[in-house]
Amino acid sequence: MLPAAAGYDRGITVFSPDGRLYQVEYAIETVRRGTLALGIKSTDGVILAVEEKTRKLQISNVTQKIFQIDDHIGLAAAGYIPDARTQVDHARFFAQSNRLIYDEVVDVEGVAKNLADMAQQYTQYAGARPFGVALILAGVDKNGIGLYLTDPSGTYIGYDAVAIGAGSEQVTEHLEKNYRNDISLDKACVLAIESIFMVSEEKTGTKHIRLAVIDSKSKTLRMMPLEEIENYSKQVQDKESQS
Amino acid sequence: MLPAAAGYDRGITVFSPDGRLYQVEYAIETVRRGTLALGIKSTDGVILAVEEKTRKLQISNVTQKIFQIDDHIGLAAAGYIPDARTQVDHARFFAQSNRLIYDEVVDVEGVAKNLADMAQQYTQYAGARPFGVALILAGVDKNGIGLYLTDPSGTYIGYDAVAIGAGSEQVTEHLEKNYRNDISLDKACVLAIESIFMVSEEKTGTKHIRLAVIDSKSKTLRMMPLEEIENYSKQVQDKESQS
Amino acid sequence: MLPAAAGYDRGITVFSPDGRLYQVEYAIETVRRGTLALGIKSTDGVILAVEEKTRKLQISNVTQKIFQIDDHIGLAAAGYIPDARTQVDHARFFAQSNRLIYDEVVDVEGVAKNLADMAQQYTQYAGARPFGVALILAGVDKNGIGLYLTDPSGTYIGYDAVAIGAGSEQVTEHLEKNYRNDISLDKACVLAIESIFMVSEEKTGTKHIRLAVIDSKSKTLRMMPLEEIENYSKQVQDKESQS
Amino acid sequence: MLPAAAGYDRGITVFSPDGRLYQVEYAIETVRRGTLALGIKSTDGVILAVEEKTRKLQISNVTQKIFQIDDHIGLAAAGYIPDARTQVDHARFFAQSNRLIYDEVVDVEGVAKNLADMAQQYTQYAGARPFGVALILAGVDKNGIGLYLTDPSGTYIGYDAVAIGAGSEQVTEHLEKNYRNDISLDKACVLAIESIFMVSEEKTGTKHIRLAVIDSKSKTLRMMPLEEIENYSKQVQDKESQS
Amino acid sequence: MLPAAAGYDRGITVFSPDGRLYQVEYAIETVRRGTLALGIKSTDGVILAVEEKTRKLQISNVTQKIFQIDDHIGLAAAGYIPDARTQVDHARFFAQSNRLIYDEVVDVEGVAKNLADMAQQYTQYAGARPFGVALILAGVDKNGIGLYLTDPSGTYIGYDAVAIGAGSEQVTEHLEKNYRNDISLDKACVLAIESIFMVSEEKTGTKHIRLAVIDSKSKTLRMMPLEEIENYSKQVQDKESQS
Amino acid sequence: MLPAAAGYDRGITVFSPDGRLYQVEYAIETVRRGTLALGIKSTDGVILAVEEKTRKLQISNVTQKIFQIDDHIGLAAAGYIPDARTQVDHARFFAQSNRLIYDEVVDVEGVAKNLADMAQQYTQYAGARPFGVALILAGVDKNGIGLYLTDPSGTYIGYDAVAIGAGSEQVTEHLEKNYRNDISLDKACVLAIESIFMVSEEKTGTKHIRLAVIDSKSKTLRMMPLEEIENYSKQVQDKESQS
Amino acid sequence: MLPAAAGYDRGITVFSPDGRLYQVEYAIETVRRGTLALGIKSTDGVILAVEEKTRKLQISNVTQKIFQIDDHIGLAAAGYIPDARTQVDHARFFAQSNRLIYDEVVDVEGVAKNLADMAQQYTQYAGARPFGVALILAGVDKNGIGLYLTDPSGTYIGYDAVAIGAGSEQVTEHLEKNYRNDISLDKACVLAIESIFMVSEEKTGTKHIRLAVIDSKSKTLRMMPLEEIENYSKQVQDKESQS
Repeated sequence: MLPAAAGYDRGITVFSPDGRLYQVEYAIETVRRGTLALGIKSTDGVILAVEEKTRKLQISNVTQKIFQIDDHIGLAAAGYIPDARTQVDHARFFAQSNRLIYDEVVDVEGVAKNLADMAQQYTQYAGARPFGVALILAGVDKNGIGLYLTDPSGTYIGYDAVAIGAGSEQVTEHLEKNYRNDISLDKACVLAIESIFMVSEEKTGTKHIRLAVIDSKSKTLRMMPLEEIENYSKQVQDKESQS
Repeated sequence: MLPAAAGYDRGITVFSPDGRLYQVEYAIETVRRGTLALGIKSTDGVILAVEEKTRKLQISNVTQKIFQIDDHIGLAAAGYIPDARTQVDHARFFAQSNRLIYDEVVDVEGVAKNLADMAQQYTQYAGARPFGVALILAGVDKNGIGLYLTDPSGTYIGYDAVAIGAGSEQVTEHLEKNYRNDISLDKACVLAIESIFMVSEEKTGTKHIRLAVIDSKSKTLRMMPLEEIENYSKQVQDKESQS
Repeated sequence: MLPAAAGYDRGITVFSPDGRLYQVEYAIETVRRGTLALGIKSTDGVILAVEEKTRKLQISNVTQKIFQIDDHIGLAAAGYIPDARTQVDHARFFAQSNRLIYDEVVDVEGVAKNLADMAQQYTQYAGARPFGVALILAGVDKNGIGLYLTDPSGTYIGYDAVAIGAGSEQVTEHLEKNYRNDISLDKACVLAIESIFMVSEEKTGTKHIRLAVIDSKSKTLRMMPLEEIENYSKQVQDKESQS
Repeated sequence: MLPAAAGYDRGITVFSPDGRLYQVEYAIETVRRGTLALGIKSTDGVILAVEEKTRKLQISNVTQKIFQIDDHIGLAAAGYIPDARTQVDHARFFAQSNRLIYDEVVDVEGVAKNLADMAQQYTQYAGARPFGVALILAGVDKNGIGLYLTDPSGTYIGYDAVAIGAGSEQVTEHLEKNYRNDISLDKACVLAIESIFMVSEEKTGTKHIRLAVIDSKSKTLRMMPLEEIENYSKQVQDKESQS
Repeated sequence: MLPAAAGYDRGITVFSPDGRLYQVEYAIETVRRGTLALGIKSTDGVILAVEEKTRKLQISNVTQKIFQIDDHIGLAAAGYIPDARTQVDHARFFAQSNRLIYDEVVDVEGVAKNLADMAQQYTQYAGARPFGVALILAGVDKNGIGLYLTDPSGTYIGYDAVAIGAGSEQVTEHLEKNYRNDISLDKACVLAIESIFMVSEEKTGTKHIRLAVIDSKSKTLRMMPLEEIENYSKQVQDKESQS
Repeated sequence: MLPAAAGYDRGITVFSPDGRLYQVEYAIETVRRGTLALGIKSTDGVILAVEEKTRKLQISNVTQKIFQIDDHIGLAAAGYIPDARTQVDHARFFAQSNRLIYDEVVDVEGVAKNLADMAQQYTQYAGARPFGVALILAGVDKNGIGLYLTDPSGTYIGYDAVAIGAGSEQVTEHLEKNYRNDISLDKACVLAIESIFMVSEEKTGTKHIRLAVIDSKSKTLRMMPLEEIENYSKQVQDKESQS
Repeated sequence: MLPAAAGYDRGITVFSPDGRLYQVEYAIETVRRGTLALGIKSTDGVILAVEEKTRKLQISNVTQKIFQIDDHIGLAAAGYIPDARTQVDHARFFAQSNRLIYDEVVDVEGVAKNLADMAQQYTQYAGARPFGVALILAGVDKNGIGLYLTDPSGTYIGYDAVAIGAGSEQVTEHLEKNYRNDISLDKACVLAIESIFMVSEEKTGTKHIRLAVIDSKSKTLRMMPLEEIENYSKQVQDKESQS
């Protein structure tokens, strides 16, 4: 947790003497408190994966943290999820407008920049707090596979693989060690589930895992059914038992 | 009660150094102070039940805490009830608009998302406080039976059975133990009344209980008359005396 | 008086850590400081009664605390009376609009909900304080006799008999003990005056009493002339001397 | 002076824990600091009288504290006089609008309610302070003679005789002792001047006295010329020397 | 200087517990800090006089403190002069509008009331501070000679002779002793210059004196040329050497 | 530096108990911190001169502190220069509007009053800080040569010669001693450069000096080329070596 | 870091007693915390260079800190990059508007002034914080090669070579020592990379370097490919090994 400098951490749009925007840093802290979300590019598509903690009687075959923006674009969120929904609605509208105005599907980076610009506004103007959520945007467009991270500061950056939320530091290290540019979609799924097990309290099972895939051919987001996830999950456990 | 971090608990839309929105957490505390409300899905419909404390001369055959949104959707509230009415009016307007624009009845989840989006706005913009109420939305639509919870944070989640308000932790445990997916509507009513007796000061009687049913056939909300409630109440007491 | 939690009692629309809205509670305290107002349903109509303290040279045959909303609806207020006038103007406009738009008189409950919704808005948005007044709405409409209480929180509840303002706790107890559903209009008037004597400094006389009646037949509000009040007042004193 | 409860006395529209609006009470304190103003009904008309302290070179045959609203209505003010002018302009516009829209002169009570409603608004909304002035409205209309007091709280009340400003408590007692419903206009003038002498530093003379009369026949406000005031002033002194 | 009551002196539109508006009193203090300005009525016209301190290289034959509002009306200011210019522009527009709408020149009192009403608004609404300037308005209209003072509180009062700014208490005493209703325009000029010498650091010379005259015949404001001022200045010194 | 009176120095538009506007005084302090700017009238034109400190690689043949408003009007600024640009844009628009509306060039004083009025607004209304810059306006119009100073308070004053910014007190004394009304344009340039050397750290050279001339004949602003400045600079040094 | 003067560092648009705008100074501190950015004019074009720290899996062949404004204008930023994007969008719109309205490409200085004016507004009005970013604008237009720096204060200044961000003091010294007006584009590139190595943690390699060139002939911005950067990088290391 950040040390609280007296006063600077209360005004929404005020710089501290050392040039920091505390409200933005606190919003990023909200992201850190969220459960893990990650995205991984592969040779034949891109995946999004999240951990979702569900209570016993909660409907478990839906996801609160992965959203479809357009046919070819998905989004995974960590942090304050109601804020993510607001940004998702914005992104969907942006994507549909693009279809209507230019008669073509929107670029993944275009959506990422748009969401980041939206987030920046909430760091500069009074009357609203910054968004408390970071977003991983994944898709396949005419430029190939795109994977972007936006955060409460209004920054957006392209990645080959990226993780946010609780435990993301550890997962990022793991990804940096194990990610290779020629990774297949299958291997990416194994890597993603492995990453979730690494930081989750539940080291086995699949009920707390959601996974979405956009493969390069169909260019269409597909929520992975439980059986497939279980299949990859087994591969992770086999791998671990081998090592 | 939450420990009050100096200052962060006063600004409406300000993050604390540990990434929390205290105003939202306090609004959820308002929900915890409200009397119990719950919803239970069954094989042949869904029910909403609330405890309502009434003074002696209060008109007792009406409810302040269960609302009809549309023919096929009901809502039970816990917390600051005047806020619930504002959200109910919003939801009714949303449901009627759906009929007019698309010529079909609104989905239960659509209403839940709409109410949660509304609540999220009140957590981000200055000039208003968050809503001090959580809502259980129940209905039957073309997707089957829907049961959703929205809260002051702007979160909405689907449940098989859910409880909010004073004593809801204890009731949730009870539901988790006793709820089964093949529960009949009759059994669900018994379970609901049992839950209310569990946390209410009044362990018998039915005057403090309101119950609404939307069965899968009629897809129409029906407030349960006192006699029926008494009937189920007796079953609860019989059950207890047996154990 | 409520204990003042540092800070939370100043922001208009801010929750306290224990989920309370202090400004609303303080506004209700304003109601408690007002002189008594009450309403009682009877078999053949409904009455509103208030105590009005007047200075010596004040015009005494008018009332500051009972208002006519429409032919068939009256309102009694306790608390900050100038706020009551604002709500009364709003209610009158609402009632007249109903006549114009639907060509029928407004329901009593419709007005009660409308006034409570108005009050709720003043508890949620910045830029204004809540209303410092509670209102008893009485009337006869197509549903029969209606009696409702609205308060600064935006709550409205139906009652058979209800009292607000200074001494209302004591009067409520008295009403709960003595009210019966088959009470006649005459008896209700005696009970009302008895209630005022119970908490007023002036234990006799009628100059400090105002009483309005809406009987089920005429469905028209009538301010009771002094002589009638005196007549009922005598019955109270006879009753007391007997006991 | 009122005891200052820490904090509650600074926010414009905030209730204190004991349900008081300090800003309104402080505004009423401003009225108490103003010089005396009074109004008295008589059998054949109504009078307004004020004390006006003037510096030596000030133009003394005009008044800052008595205003004509319409032919048949006058107004006397105590407190922060610039605020009175704002309310007077409002009242004049209201009176003229009434002539234009309904083709008849406005009721005195209608103006009183209108001014009080205006004052109430300034106690509820942020962005402005309450009015620091109380107003005595006097006139003759189709209902007879009207005399009303409005104050910063937004209250308005009808009186037979009423005094505001510095020393008004003492004058009110005097009026209560000496006022009779069958008082003639002449006697009312004597009573008014007597009241001013009672609390003014200047116990004789007329230069600090302004008096306006609206008699029942002409229904027209008339500022009393100095000689007439001197005449009544002499009667006061004769009376005193007799006693 | 006024004693600063904690807090009440910071809010723009807030009453103190003793019913004072500190911001208005502080604005009046700004007037007291300004250099002297005065106005004197005479039998054949009215004059305005001010002291203006000028640095060595400042253009000295112009005035910052006397303004022409219309042909027949002038204005002298003391206090925060940039505020005076704002009010002057307002008054000029008001005067020209009067010519256009009613086809006649505006009354002096009409302008005084208009400026005072403008000043009152700045004492009641948030978002702006009161004006820091008092204005002496002088002119000749169909009612004769008019001389009015407006101040930051929004008060306006007619005077035969009036002084504002630093030393105005002493000058007012002097005017009260020496002013007579039958004073000639010449004598008024002598009295004005005498007054300025009385409180200025420069007891002789005319470079720091500005004087404007509106005589009853021409009804036109004329800035007095230096030679005339010198002439009157000599009369003052002769008078003093005689005494 | 001014002594900081607790609190009064933070509110933008608030008077202190001694009638001062601290924010305006602090803005004037900003002017004092700026580098020197001055203007001097001569018999055959008017000049503006400023010191500009430039870093080594800065483009040095342009000026940040002298601006052309119209053909015949220039402006030199000291203080917070970005604010000066805002006021310059405003003045240019005002000058061009004058050409369009009245078909003649704007008066120098007209621009000065307009800029000062603009500055006054920023001292009275909340939501913006005062301008942190003082402006010397110089030009030749149909009234002859004009030289005006405006400052953050909204004051504007005509001068024969005037200096603002760091060291302006010393330079003003120097100007007051050495300025004569019959000074030639050449001598004025020497006097200006002499003044800059007096307070600048660089006592020789011309790279830190900018000079603009508007001569009475051409009535057109001309930025002086480096060689001319060097020529005058030599005259200053010759003069000094003589004395 | 700046010493924090109590209070003045929190209000957005408030001057401190010594005439400083702390919020602006803190925003400039944000610029100082950013990684290095620099621009260098040469005889045959102008270059922009930045250091960009990238995490392992970040897409490294794109830049977050150099932006194209128009064909002939580029921009490099240091500080809070999301703010830079906002200003870039503004500049692009301004450039395109210029093409549409005047049918010619915009001047580099025109864009610099426009961005600086935009920044100034955010230092004067409440409701938003200043921009936390400084921008180096480089381009070739009809006036030749232009290189400008804008900062959070709203200042803009032309330079031959300029550096901002962490280590810019050291780099500026280096540029001042080594920059010559007849530097070739090639030499400028070497100087730029040399400057980045000087302050970067990474003293070799090119992955953390981005470089853009606008040469005088093509007048078109070109992002330099990695191989070219590597070529220049080698020259730097050869140079260093020689010395």
